[in-house]
Amino acid sequence: MITLYEQADSGNCYKVRLVAAHTGRPVRRVSVSSRDGSTRTPEFLARNPIGKVPTVELEDGRFLAESNAIMLHLAEGTSLIPADAYDRAKAYEWLFFEQYSHEPAIAVRRALSVYPERAALATPERLAQLLEAGNKALGVMEARLTKADWLAGDAFSVADIALYAYTHTADQGGYDLAPFPGIRRWLDRVAALPGHIGLLD
Amino acid sequence: MITLYEQADSGNCYKVRLVAAHTGRPVRRVSVSSRDGSTRTPEFLARNPIGKVPTVELEDGRFLAESNAIMLHLAEGTSLIPADAYDRAKAYEWLFFEQYSHEPAIAVRRALSVYPERAALATPERLAQLLEAGNKALGVMEARLTKADWLAGDAFSVADIALYAYTHTADQGGYDLAPFPGIRRWLDRVAALPGHIGLLD
Repeated sequence: MITLYEQADSGNCYKVRLVAAHTGRPVRRVSVSSRDGSTRTPEFLARNPIGKVPTVELEDGRFLAESNAIMLHLAEGTSLIPADAYDRAKAYEWLFFEQYSHEPAIAVRRALSVYPERAALATPERLAQLLEAGNKALGVMEARLTKADWLAGDAFSVADIALYAYTHTADQGGYDLAPFPGIRRWLDRVAALPGHIGLLD
Repeated sequence: MITLYEQADSGNCYKVRLVAAHTGRPVRRVSVSSRDGSTRTPEFLARNPIGKVPTVELEDGRFLAESNAIMLHLAEGTSLIPADAYDRAKAYEWLFFEQYSHEPAIAVRRALSVYPERAALATPERLAQLLEAGNKALGVMEARLTKADWLAGDAFSVADIALYAYTHTADQGGYDLAPFPGIRRWLDRVAALPGHIGLLD
């Protein structure tokens, strides 16, 4: 069984649990957090030198970090990785888009809004900048989801899991999804899938 | 032949040309840039809704964006993708590390330092923050490269190309590589490979 070092309400950690749920893989969960310093201990840094969650210990004792890399590894050989080469490349494209253009706005603005110790960093300028960047990322998703059910190819994939993780809590960061009906329908579609689990399940 | 929409001195675009060079694939190059607005035209946004380079038009006329996704696609079936599942997962890990923790510091500080129109954004606070973040990313690379020749597994891969692209011009952003001898040896190792091309070749 794999061990997931996680912070319970982290969308990046949720991605790993969603892939595990959809592929029927049990997960042992260990709670650590940047909020209490437990991701900066020598013991944790030996597992992941970047000191971030999620970090996974595989069955053979080796470690793997970066949420989207963990997803690609756990999903190999399953339908969560598109079989068609172009669809697979588009899934990769969405994964990198998520980490470069989506998460640094939408997840960060949520953290600034939800975690009291981050409030000092939540200047009006920063919040405005993150709102604009996040809405731009949501616009890119909406353009796809008004004409297709899923982000990459014609089936649910790791791309949908990666973007679902923080999009479904975007309201906690002050994002209004009312102008994005394609995204709202897609969120419902993901949540209705057999095997789906919630962020705090 | 694929068409690469690129900005000539962009490290992200250079990654695509390096993968093409190492896999013997010819590339038609078309110059566009965020600096002159040519990535924001309706024509370019139809190719890539995010309006960024690199964007690639494949042989069949379909488009693909995100430098690391393009690399994974072009390198499929070659030795640039590690054959071992764990080594491959580590390559993915480095690709996401590059886009989340390395490029947003090291490439951005270079752009602020090199492009005159960005100078107004180069506040002392921002430059100091980017220096710290970039040195932290370099430290993560150094820890690996003091004990191994290559980033993922025991051979040159897309992970090395992704990190080489901006690390080899880190000095242009004001980073000092003297404290990172493992990185300096690795830069030489990459540049000495048969088929290697320079950023401006």
